Amino acid sequence: MGRILKVAAAQLGPIQRADKREAVVQRLIALLREAASSGCKLVVFPELALTTFFPRWYMEDDAEVDSYFEHSMPNDAVQPLFDEAKKLGVGFHLGYAEAILEDGRQRRFNTAIIVAPDGKIAGKYRKIHLPGHAEHRPQSPFQHLEKRYFEVGNGGFKVYRAYNGVLGMCICNDRRWPETFRVMGLQGVEMVVLGFNTPDTNIYHHEPVHRRMFHHMLSLQAGAYQNATWVVASAKAGNEDGFGLIGGSAIVAPTGEIAAQAITEDDELIMFNCDLDIGRDFKEYMFNFAKHRRIEHYKLITEQTGVVDPPED
Amino acid sequence: MGRILKVAAAQLGPIQRADKREAVVQRLIALLREAASSGCKLVVFPELALTTFFPRWYMEDDAEVDSYFEHSMPNDAVQPLFDEAKKLGVGFHLGYAEAILEDGRQRRFNTAIIVAPDGKIAGKYRKIHLPGHAEHRPQSPFQHLEKRYFEVGNGGFKVYRAYNGVLGMCICNDRRWPETFRVMGLQGVEMVVLGFNTPDTNIYHHEPVHRRMFHHMLSLQAGAYQNATWVVASAKAGNEDGFGLIGGSAIVAPTGEIAAQAITEDDELIMFNCDLDIGRDFKEYMFNFAKHRRIEHYKLITEQTGVVDPPED
Repeated sequence: MGRILKVAAAQLGPIQRADKREAVVQRLIALLREAASSGCKLVVFPELALTTFFPRWYMEDDAEVDSYFEHSMPNDAVQPLFDEAKKLGVGFHLGYAEAILEDGRQRRFNTAIIVAPDGKIAGKYRKIHLPGHAEHRPQSPFQHLEKRYFEVGNGGFKVYRAYNGVLGMCICNDRRWPETFRVMGLQGVEMVVLGFNTPDTNIYHHEPVHRRMFHHMLSLQAGAYQNATWVVASAKAGNEDGFGLIGGSAIVAPTGEIAAQAITEDDELIMFNCDLDIGRDFKEYMFNFAKHRRIEHYKLITEQTGVVDPPED
Repeated sequence: MGRILKVAAAQLGPIQRADKREAVVQRLIALLREAASSGCKLVVFPELALTTFFPRWYMEDDAEVDSYFEHSMPNDAVQPLFDEAKKLGVGFHLGYAEAILEDGRQRRFNTAIIVAPDGKIAGKYRKIHLPGHAEHRPQSPFQHLEKRYFEVGNGGFKVYRAYNGVLGMCICNDRRWPETFRVMGLQGVEMVVLGFNTPDTNIYHHEPVHRRMFHHMLSLQAGAYQNATWVVASAKAGNEDGFGLIGGSAIVAPTGEIAAQAITEDDELIMFNCDLDIGRDFKEYMFNFAKHRRIEHYKLITEQTGVVDPPED
């Protein structure tokens, strides 16, 4: 018996544009209570869990954009979630749009926090791999304007000692990039928690929906296996503002195997008793980084951003 | 219709310790002919395809170790394969143990080459991620002495213009490390070819065989998807010297999907019409490295070899 952390991924069904934060927070609290009553100590909520996935909308009015952001955390709308979690002795992970006065100017990030069971914020992460585009694409069925509304996260991929283990965070598109998991793996991460809003449609080129779900799972499983870490991923799912989001919230073991998986596109809780020691054999042998990694042959990864094709013959 | 390269993975059943190279080469030639008759232009043979997987044996006699190495390529035993390929106008990939006088001393590498249809060696790769151990482990059912018998490859992960595309190579354990594929992805790789000898037993800790096959496929699929490249992997399989090797030779598409997969543990050919253009949409959008990678947050990957745990609270 190792270090057991019973964790829940709390998937959310859609949040429509007209939905108030207070109503959303009541849904989060209901999931939190259900998780607590099952003995969970950590509940993982999705990316941008307080509003609709607003980067799908092109907005020119900055006040309208701003209405989707949180200017403090917690704030009045979210305080009941913090209060309930502290009362229950349960921690949580929450994604939200963060507006903050920093470096003398107003900045906006796609952010997530880990809140400890005592109600204190134990860690914060700002999304680094912002997908999509910055300019309006009227030809697309919907927008993916994360590059317009958010700055690239400026805090790196940190890990935190919490829940008797080493936890890290990433958000949505970050999970597709092996660098995300590796940077945390090099800091001994034992559980990566993340939220995602993944449209069921690729706005750039045709792609069957089943392949998008496969890519989601493949990314989680590879990141977990290659760094011998748990991965807990929580979706916002279903028909939101008339557009579909895939579900597929999942808890993936350090073996890369799916330990639990959501099967609806609604509010749904999945849980697992995660043994934080289970990755030890992998970290000691197959993925003993100190013994096997050859950083002298990895230089391109940090020296070169884009592709440089080999010279023509 | 894009740039089609019809490729075969030529899996090999076991090669016993007593088997002569000449007999093995006849098996390779039979597979080469079968592939050519089906219109394949490139045939991928496994890692260390000319002998048994000798790193499973602890040997103190250096002459005995040396007997598993090739001192020139091609040599008399392998020349018939080169001749037949040139005659058929088919190229191939071959893994072998390379002994070479370099930098004024005898050196040994776990090596692979790509041979073009004209019979010329178009590219060479020396294995970088050597698994296993350097010292005798008498407590293990068999050895995995790659760190004893080989030096770490000194040529990096290069790519080559060949077959009207951009090809790269890695070998066996390299496939488990995302850095392998990423370094080639940053050079625009369109097809990674590799051979492997993966024991069905983990000599360090218990692990079910099905999980080892899953990890093999997961590694190929993640590397393919995350770099939008074809991956063609060829196994040596079956009961060799009394110990099992998994099969699972596979051709994986740039979508990460398994396009073809071997189902035996014997000499077996699998083939696929690989469209080298099929990864273009992924390279342009989801995995547009220039737009989305954030190398300023990846520094640990090349600055730090092993895990550095976060400070205790």
